Amino acid sequence: MTMLASHFSSLTSKMYSVSTSDHASVVSLNLFVALLCACIVIGHLLEENRWMNESITALLIGLGTGVVILLLSRGKNSHLLVFSEDLFFIYLLPPIIFNAGFQVKKKQFFRNFVTIMIFGAIGTVISCTIISLGVIQFFKKLDIGTFDLGDYLAIGAIFAATDSVCTLQVLNQDETPLLYSLVFGEGVVNDATSVVLFNAIQSFDLTHLNHEAGFLFLGSFLYLFILSTLLGVATGLISAYVIKKLYFGRHSTDREVALMMLMAYLSYMLAELFALSGILTVFFCGIVMSHYTWHNVTESSRITTKHTFATLSFLAETFIFLYVGMDALDIEKWRFVSDSPGTSVAVSSILMGLVMVGRAAFVFPLSFLSNLSKKTQSEKIDIKQQFVIWWAGMMRGAVSMALAYNKFTRSGHTELRGNAIMITSTITVCLFSTVVFGMLTKPLIRHLMPHQKATTSMLSDDNTPKSIHIPLLDGEQQDSFVELSGNHHDVPRPDSIRGFLMRPTRTVHHYWRQFDDAFMRPVFGGRGFVPFVPGSPTERSSHDLSKP
Amino acid sequence: MTMLASHFSSLTSKMYSVSTSDHASVVSLNLFVALLCACIVIGHLLEENRWMNESITALLIGLGTGVVILLLSRGKNSHLLVFSEDLFFIYLLPPIIFNAGFQVKKKQFFRNFVTIMIFGAIGTVISCTIISLGVIQFFKKLDIGTFDLGDYLAIGAIFAATDSVCTLQVLNQDETPLLYSLVFGEGVVNDATSVVLFNAIQSFDLTHLNHEAGFLFLGSFLYLFILSTLLGVATGLISAYVIKKLYFGRHSTDREVALMMLMAYLSYMLAELFALSGILTVFFCGIVMSHYTWHNVTESSRITTKHTFATLSFLAETFIFLYVGMDALDIEKWRFVSDSPGTSVAVSSILMGLVMVGRAAFVFPLSFLSNLSKKTQSEKIDIKQQFVIWWAGMMRGAVSMALAYNKFTRSGHTELRGNAIMITSTITVCLFSTVVFGMLTKPLIRHLMPHQKATTSMLSDDNTPKSIHIPLLDGEQQDSFVELSGNHHDVPRPDSIRGFLMRPTRTVHHYWRQFDDAFMRPVFGGRGFVPFVPGSPTERSSHDLSKP
Repeated sequence: MTMLASHFSSLTSKMYSVSTSDHASVVSLNLFVALLCACIVIGHLLEENRWMNESITALLIGLGTGVVILLLSRGKNSHLLVFSEDLFFIYLLPPIIFNAGFQVKKKQFFRNFVTIMIFGAIGTVISCTIISLGVIQFFKKLDIGTFDLGDYLAIGAIFAATDSVCTLQVLNQDETPLLYSLVFGEGVVNDATSVVLFNAIQSFDLTHLNHEAGFLFLGSFLYLFILSTLLGVATGLISAYVIKKLYFGRHSTDREVALMMLMAYLSYMLAELFALSGILTVFFCGIVMSHYTWHNVTESSRITTKHTFATLSFLAETFIFLYVGMDALDIEKWRFVSDSPGTSVAVSSILMGLVMVGRAAFVFPLSFLSNLSKKTQSEKIDIKQQFVIWWAGMMRGAVSMALAYNKFTRSGHTELRGNAIMITSTITVCLFSTVVFGMLTKPLIRHLMPHQKATTSMLSDDNTPKSIHIPLLDGEQQDSFVELSGNHHDVPRPDSIRGFLMRPTRTVHHYWRQFDDAFMRPVFGGRGFVPFVPGSPTERSSHDLSKP
Repeated sequence: MTMLASHFSSLTSKMYSVSTSDHASVVSLNLFVALLCACIVIGHLLEENRWMNESITALLIGLGTGVVILLLSRGKNSHLLVFSEDLFFIYLLPPIIFNAGFQVKKKQFFRNFVTIMIFGAIGTVISCTIISLGVIQFFKKLDIGTFDLGDYLAIGAIFAATDSVCTLQVLNQDETPLLYSLVFGEGVVNDATSVVLFNAIQSFDLTHLNHEAGFLFLGSFLYLFILSTLLGVATGLISAYVIKKLYFGRHSTDREVALMMLMAYLSYMLAELFALSGILTVFFCGIVMSHYTWHNVTESSRITTKHTFATLSFLAETFIFLYVGMDALDIEKWRFVSDSPGTSVAVSSILMGLVMVGRAAFVFPLSFLSNLSKKTQSEKIDIKQQFVIWWAGMMRGAVSMALAYNKFTRSGHTELRGNAIMITSTITVCLFSTVVFGMLTKPLIRHLMPHQKATTSMLSDDNTPKSIHIPLLDGEQQDSFVELSGNHHDVPRPDSIRGFLMRPTRTVHHYWRQFDDAFMRPVFGGRGFVPFVPGSPTERSSHDLSKP
């Protein structure tokens, strides 16, 4: 029977080419999917571990697999796929950033908007400058090939790029909402800044840095930031309008979900098409969709989108870390390193040190400036929080990797000595910062802010001290997105007038609320502006749920 | 401001290469996503139209876009992407077939299992033989280059490949469950048969067709069928066991959803790796997952998976039809046709005619044989139903296209005259059959079986006459999967003993039920074997729903 089976097997394997032209890619895909499953199960089993988180688990599994492949292929090969920027920027990054916007605590985010903008824009420039200057200073003493000023500035930009993906993994929105919104928000704005910085480095005459160049730089930043945001908001509003007008739910939940997914992706791709910041666009699209579109769909669509976006984001994150882990051992890159291990270690250490200094150089001064503008003690960022912001934003990950690959390698190969060293150093910094800082972040936050951990609440915005003073300010729990519609009726709410009288200072948000209720919601929908009662039994047992 | 903006725009566009290396691919992706959105919205607006369905809408939109691109590029180009088998077989087909298995009415499917097997296996062989013989006969009279016997048999296999995707679009499981299960089930078995057929054509000595070759053929078919099924069942059971044992829901709904998606995909890719029939494997994996795994997860996971799988399947289907529509106008292929339009029309007509004859040659005789074995009138396939089965299975679509591309073209180009004509003829047959037969199917079914339309019921299996005799046979609504857990408590059920006494002949299913309850469910979970009460208020408001 076994012989017969193997005979048929060899026969049928000839047929193989009908279905898939490339056997190797099928093997890779199988291994990758199996490893993703393993990451989920092992990550789940290590849930209670105080050091590990899922990104580190995936990274270590990727490293382990790389070692196994290296041994099996007798030192020839360690990775299944060559690192592809397209894969990262076109398929993996959009779901992660969109989901972050979709699930972000909007009130917390907008309350800290100015601080986030300052951190993201000015902070990135400071960080980039310091890293560039440091690299110029230190690299001259090391024998690592020739770099020009543009290269040094590019290195600054590469290592100034905060990795939003790592931040999302390490910080918990429910446990440390202020830190989360600052560090993550900074990461989102950072993307727009990086685009402008790279652009500036590549196109401006670096020998003539004058006022005009500064204004041009500021102008491009504002142009990019405003247009990217507007594009995201517009796409989100169109999706809300279309779904509200056509009322898809009558026919099919699946169409609503498909349309939301497509529109979100479209916003990112449109931004890429117009050379805007796709990350900013898709982030704001996520915010608008969670504020309007999400309330216009059926309850099953709401549950489905919420979990689908989270699942896709989770899978993309795991994929990235697994990928970076496997790619790290690619033998070709390390060939130059083995000739001079000392130089490589020195470069990596210098870069890591500069990242730490560069981040400290803007977190502490800018926090000080931000605190000056705040009146109450509770609104200020205290020194412990500053320390955690400094610490948690130190991780460098897939974004830095992608930029480094773009700058120092073409078609996945590392030819020059200097380029090879820069690639391996970037990998070293990414791995070191993610694993070491990642592992230490949980215990650090628990040690510095024990009360934060205690208030792990599902009720949004209630775990920062200041939000106690403005409970349900505007008769609308904007952030209670995470609640299911079934139970938000039970919460008694003060009406907007009372909220207004209680704290008349916060008028911007109040006027926005009035504008939203008077003009935006009647057109684009949103909570309370859709024709069915969410969570009611009639709605639940309707045909939308039972007919796929 | 406009000048400034355009200045910045040109500056930033240089930065473009950081994010994505290929501008053209971003443009294509944008257009494709926008067109998918358009398909959904227009398909929704045409919902009540008696002729159109979503696949035809997508096909026509694709054709229209092709025309526009053709005009814009001044006749140079019509498609955005070259048809890629990998894209189709690795990414688009698995979600469609998995979802079909996940949402299939299991009782209906297994009740007609023998008929489906006969139709799928023997029917495909008959159809392939007749088309091959006809092609040999007719093509000799036309001047279309040289084909050998292997090519003729390949053409037979290409046009014998029922397109499950088209079937899913044209037939409605709720309206015509018997026809749906027969035609779709045939399509799934057809895939295994096609693999064996292709294999046989490519490896056997075609000059010596004897008994041994016949046995070998039968042997490979059984080998493929059994192993593919077992692999799918095993993957499904592993997912059920892992999720039941680890009880993921405590921590995260998203992990459950991710694991189910990954395991389903893994089953397909493993089958491809072992040169089995991925379609059969993933179909049975879907059935097992809906029977066990789906009941082991939280309610929000259940809603999410149900709609996510349906949405992904819907998107993949729309994508395929859009793609085929756009690809149809690729100018290069039609160059040969324009030289001799008469020949091309003749070839297409011959092929279409042979498809009709080939299908008739097995549907009516095999239905007759199948009816002989049935005792009651209600179980038999009447002549009207036979006609609809013949009609609805006539569509040829993406599967035929992929096989034709594999056989008659390498790297997407059509060099030889004969190959070019075969490719264009395949496109013509696919477009014609999908659009014309697709449009006529709805009115045809309505005309031939008006009572079928009237019983559009969400309660499964109650709309075929015969199922009235065996209501809720075994105290388990196996097919009530489509119902939400919230309302299935209301249905009063006879217990299994009574059902058993009412119809003691259907013992196979009863024994399976007993085995399932005694051995399978305690290990792998399933309805009633999971520790929470589905649909209860406590479960609904638990943290799984509110914490993403």
